[in-house]
Amino acid sequence: MSRAAIQPLKLNQVTIDGLFWGKRLDTNRTVTLKVQYEQSRGRLDAFKLDWKPGQPNQPHRFWDSDVAKWIEASAFSLATHPDAALEKRLNDAVNLIASAQQPDGYLNTHYTVVAPEKRWTDLKDGHEMYCAGHLMEAATAYYEATGNRTLLDVMAKMADHIDSQFGRENGKRRGYCGHPEIELGLAKLAAATGNDRYLQLATYLLDERGQKPHYFDGEITSRGHRISAAKEGHDQHERFDYYQAHKPFREQKDIDGHAVRALYLLSGAIDIARETKDAKLLNVCKRLWRSAVEKRMYITGGVGSRRNGEAFTFDYDLPNETAYAETCASIALAFVAERLLQIEPSNEYGDVLERTLYNGILSGISLSGDRFRYANPLTIHREALSPAINRVLAAPRAEWFDCACCPPNLARVLASLGHYAYSQSKDAVYVHLFATGRATFELGGTEVTLSQTTDYPWREQISFNVELDQPTTFAISLRLPAWCRKPTVKVNGKSVSLNAITTNGYASIRRKWSDGDHIELTLPMPIERVHSNAQVRNNAGKVALQRGPIVYCVEQVDAGEDLHRLVLPVDAPLKAQWEPRLLGGVMTITGKAKRQSVDGDALYSTAAAKWQSVPFKAVPYYAWGNRKVGEMTVWLREGV
Amino acid sequence: MSRAAIQPLKLNQVTIDGLFWGKRLDTNRTVTLKVQYEQSRGRLDAFKLDWKPGQPNQPHRFWDSDVAKWIEASAFSLATHPDAALEKRLNDAVNLIASAQQPDGYLNTHYTVVAPEKRWTDLKDGHEMYCAGHLMEAATAYYEATGNRTLLDVMAKMADHIDSQFGRENGKRRGYCGHPEIELGLAKLAAATGNDRYLQLATYLLDERGQKPHYFDGEITSRGHRISAAKEGHDQHERFDYYQAHKPFREQKDIDGHAVRALYLLSGAIDIARETKDAKLLNVCKRLWRSAVEKRMYITGGVGSRRNGEAFTFDYDLPNETAYAETCASIALAFVAERLLQIEPSNEYGDVLERTLYNGILSGISLSGDRFRYANPLTIHREALSPAINRVLAAPRAEWFDCACCPPNLARVLASLGHYAYSQSKDAVYVHLFATGRATFELGGTEVTLSQTTDYPWREQISFNVELDQPTTFAISLRLPAWCRKPTVKVNGKSVSLNAITTNGYASIRRKWSDGDHIELTLPMPIERVHSNAQVRNNAGKVALQRGPIVYCVEQVDAGEDLHRLVLPVDAPLKAQWEPRLLGGVMTITGKAKRQSVDGDALYSTAAAKWQSVPFKAVPYYAWGNRKVGEMTVWLREGV
Repeated sequence: MSRAAIQPLKLNQVTIDGLFWGKRLDTNRTVTLKVQYEQSRGRLDAFKLDWKPGQPNQPHRFWDSDVAKWIEASAFSLATHPDAALEKRLNDAVNLIASAQQPDGYLNTHYTVVAPEKRWTDLKDGHEMYCAGHLMEAATAYYEATGNRTLLDVMAKMADHIDSQFGRENGKRRGYCGHPEIELGLAKLAAATGNDRYLQLATYLLDERGQKPHYFDGEITSRGHRISAAKEGHDQHERFDYYQAHKPFREQKDIDGHAVRALYLLSGAIDIARETKDAKLLNVCKRLWRSAVEKRMYITGGVGSRRNGEAFTFDYDLPNETAYAETCASIALAFVAERLLQIEPSNEYGDVLERTLYNGILSGISLSGDRFRYANPLTIHREALSPAINRVLAAPRAEWFDCACCPPNLARVLASLGHYAYSQSKDAVYVHLFATGRATFELGGTEVTLSQTTDYPWREQISFNVELDQPTTFAISLRLPAWCRKPTVKVNGKSVSLNAITTNGYASIRRKWSDGDHIELTLPMPIERVHSNAQVRNNAGKVALQRGPIVYCVEQVDAGEDLHRLVLPVDAPLKAQWEPRLLGGVMTITGKAKRQSVDGDALYSTAAAKWQSVPFKAVPYYAWGNRKVGEMTVWLREGV
Repeated sequence: MSRAAIQPLKLNQVTIDGLFWGKRLDTNRTVTLKVQYEQSRGRLDAFKLDWKPGQPNQPHRFWDSDVAKWIEASAFSLATHPDAALEKRLNDAVNLIASAQQPDGYLNTHYTVVAPEKRWTDLKDGHEMYCAGHLMEAATAYYEATGNRTLLDVMAKMADHIDSQFGRENGKRRGYCGHPEIELGLAKLAAATGNDRYLQLATYLLDERGQKPHYFDGEITSRGHRISAAKEGHDQHERFDYYQAHKPFREQKDIDGHAVRALYLLSGAIDIARETKDAKLLNVCKRLWRSAVEKRMYITGGVGSRRNGEAFTFDYDLPNETAYAETCASIALAFVAERLLQIEPSNEYGDVLERTLYNGILSGISLSGDRFRYANPLTIHREALSPAINRVLAAPRAEWFDCACCPPNLARVLASLGHYAYSQSKDAVYVHLFATGRATFELGGTEVTLSQTTDYPWREQISFNVELDQPTTFAISLRLPAWCRKPTVKVNGKSVSLNAITTNGYASIRRKWSDGDHIELTLPMPIERVHSNAQVRNNAGKVALQRGPIVYCVEQVDAGEDLHRLVLPVDAPLKAQWEPRLLGGVMTITGKAKRQSVDGDALYSTAAAKWQSVPFKAVPYYAWGNRKVGEMTVWLREGV
């Protein structure tokens, strides 16, 4: 492996617009970011440090991270859409945050004003390093967008402070945060500042985690409390895997515990492996990646199937009605995919990135951009719509959450979408995502613009046009999604044989490119009937529909109640149909299905099922719940 | 309706033995009752009232009920199997209990020695009336078996005490118990003592329940606590329906809340309706019965599908893997069925009684008689066998439980099985259950013995022989189970036309019976493929096998792991086969099925499923978990 084999293009090198993403990104900038600011103002004010005991709005231990994600998302937006007012607001916020830093570098609103005597005494649940990690991410994004070092310096000082408190050296405590995040924050800080000490600190935090005796047990006993045994399966919050402290990271075989924590940690570990050229660590990371995506991932790219503990469970355990599949967990999975992609371009990673972006992540936000989901179940049953039953999973999208991790996470992912779309090495550009727009970069001493035009993911054709001043030799490497059986590529109208030039699902077209050269990539996207591995008991006998990267679902508003009575015959003809006025413009899948009749009142009977033929319509999963509230299902019974 | 239209025969009028029940009842008497005594000794000792603060084994609020159920079960056993040593032990126990009664009649070990100042202050959770109700049941069983009035008098005095404390009269509190039970206990006490005041007290307790303002709220505020709102679906213990206090009983439309509490209350309400000739109340009872058995009952006769709150949920919500289906709830359903049967003989009630006895109740106890289940799921998945996942539901049968309601409930039901088998009116005898044995009763002034010989439920033939001194006219009324499509009856070898003599599923053969007359009842029991109502989403596309009253399941020890990969084709030939050495002797169902192959590692794929033909074997559900621990399922995928 090589350090940073390829690098994502910077946000200001990429534009994304066009049919699918254009409106979503506009909405993110004009609606979601504004909602996020309004929701975060009180939490930003906490940095004034003027809260006094007895007053309302006591700064919570998570709050700093919400502010951080607003800064980060706004900075991403500034990078592509300069906005003097927004920049002014960001500068003010950053200066306020800087003013809250303590002389020793410590920075945390909750522990500074609410419980100063408890600083660093509850790493298990205190979220101090977690908040610092998010502020480090914000600092690097803000620095990259504006060149302003204020927050970067603040967070470097905070990192120095943490480094002075925690480590294996004498006089330091061997602690680490119960919620991983700072590991990847420190890696970004190291890259932005060039200071490798931050990477060493991240490495220490990664490797100390899960060592025995458990640091968290020591915390508990030093507060005079009794340690309760890790109660397997009983109270997830008592289990070390909730904190990614069940075993040292390098010894982990399966991805376990709280999904967001597991995947943030995995992201940080990949950063460390890449930057320290630690091939063994990278192998651990790939093992955990495969555990997540080959055994424990919903077809939507959702992960973490259990609400209790927001956790991964066990291989092939993918219940649909009770799927937790937290929006943040899908986003964290995209973080992991993107990092592995930069180390080794492969559609193994790029396809999951695409899957979760178009499905499990986008389902977390309404088309209007101002309603959000925390959990993303794959089936909503009729009774689940009643508040008495399962309300967290089945509730409609909400305006915000007390524990507000998901909405700002959505905002920052969408605001930085360009970051996921292209990478470059010294002699190649990589196209990971298909979206109308332009990427500008330098290769072989020449500035190149690669423009992309497509109605993807609805249409199969993607056109690339090369603009450059002088003919230059380099490779344009296109991801060929594994869902596509017969991709074709033409360069300047001539077919290219893909077998010879494709490695790990990336077709690398290396030639001397001239201005005006163009590529036609065609990704045929018939409607596919997808089945789960036979070991997934939850989907036995069921089928899901996918077209291109889009996973479909059926909603009650189209199909009536009791979606479990709907059966899609194996030979039912299905067609894709463009519906410009539905759900912001979507390709639907329509056809005929069967519906089991309710035949009498008997609860149990020996009578054979009775059927009627019914029209069938499926819509993209990401768009569910944007019409009338009702049932929904991704997996359908398949029949004859 | 008429008061006590028919009456069950007394236990000493009935013997039950033969192939199926003989061994089970022997085991109950020689193993289960002994285990129960050993487990209950410490709780019996609590009646010495010598516990002091700081000592171990503080009497718990449930303990008196465990002792009561041991006395009741033992008394039932004495009635059929005299045993001087057991009777001596019972007498000693009853004298000890009597010595614990307070001068004012109050009787409860926990509140007498642990919290005397809190007596009657926590009806919501204190279980004082619940324990009293069980002791009333014990008292009547003990009195009936031995003629000894000691406990009956003690409990009458306790009932008088309760009557002096609670009611609508001035100076009384309008309380009722959070766990229904005393209502049916008082009805038994009224019948045994002839004192109708106990019935009036039961009626008050029934009707005060659920009135507003809520008595339990008053209790909470008088302890200085804040009332938390009933949190729908959040914390079942905070919901009034957990306590059957969500609305007045007569206003209930659906059976809701904690299943055992709901069905104990329903049993008491039927007793009250019967004894007070309250036809409106009886209609409410029938409505709730139908809600339970027509919308919310597993095919095994299990009820209460949700572990959280041990509760009924909503119509057609019958999840298999997470089925709670508490053993006590099935037993309570049998109590309800038996009571309705005495009011109006109908196979609507008798069939459910039989269904739950042979399936959901018996599954609660091992063949060895010394291991017990609290929850009775209909599917056990591989991973559920790991203690980390769902351990309460999936754990193997246990030796006992801290909250030990189920094992003694099983013991008392089995010890009193004869009570469920026959009833009589002034001119008819009713046969509800089919089991080898004898029933002796007086009809038309003549003592009649009806002997029954059968290998039911394995074989279709049931022979009855009439023994009596002089020819007498009366009816022998036989339940014709609705699962049987073509029952036939011959009297002295001649076929009887059933249509004309069958009402509500009971064939009434009225004639002048002579000594030696015999009846041959044949209940053809082909293997039936049963489907759920289409509204049961949990069983969509699935089939269960039933033969006679026995519901079958497939176990991993016979079929391998991943039972969800097993598909039973609609035309798979199946045959019943007697296996005398398997599981104490069972009829198995064997044939051929298909098993979906695990085809590669892909989690999602467009490949069609691959199949192999495999031998198929199903065993009775009640016998599951008596061999190697493994997966189990009642509902099987049905295919072509």
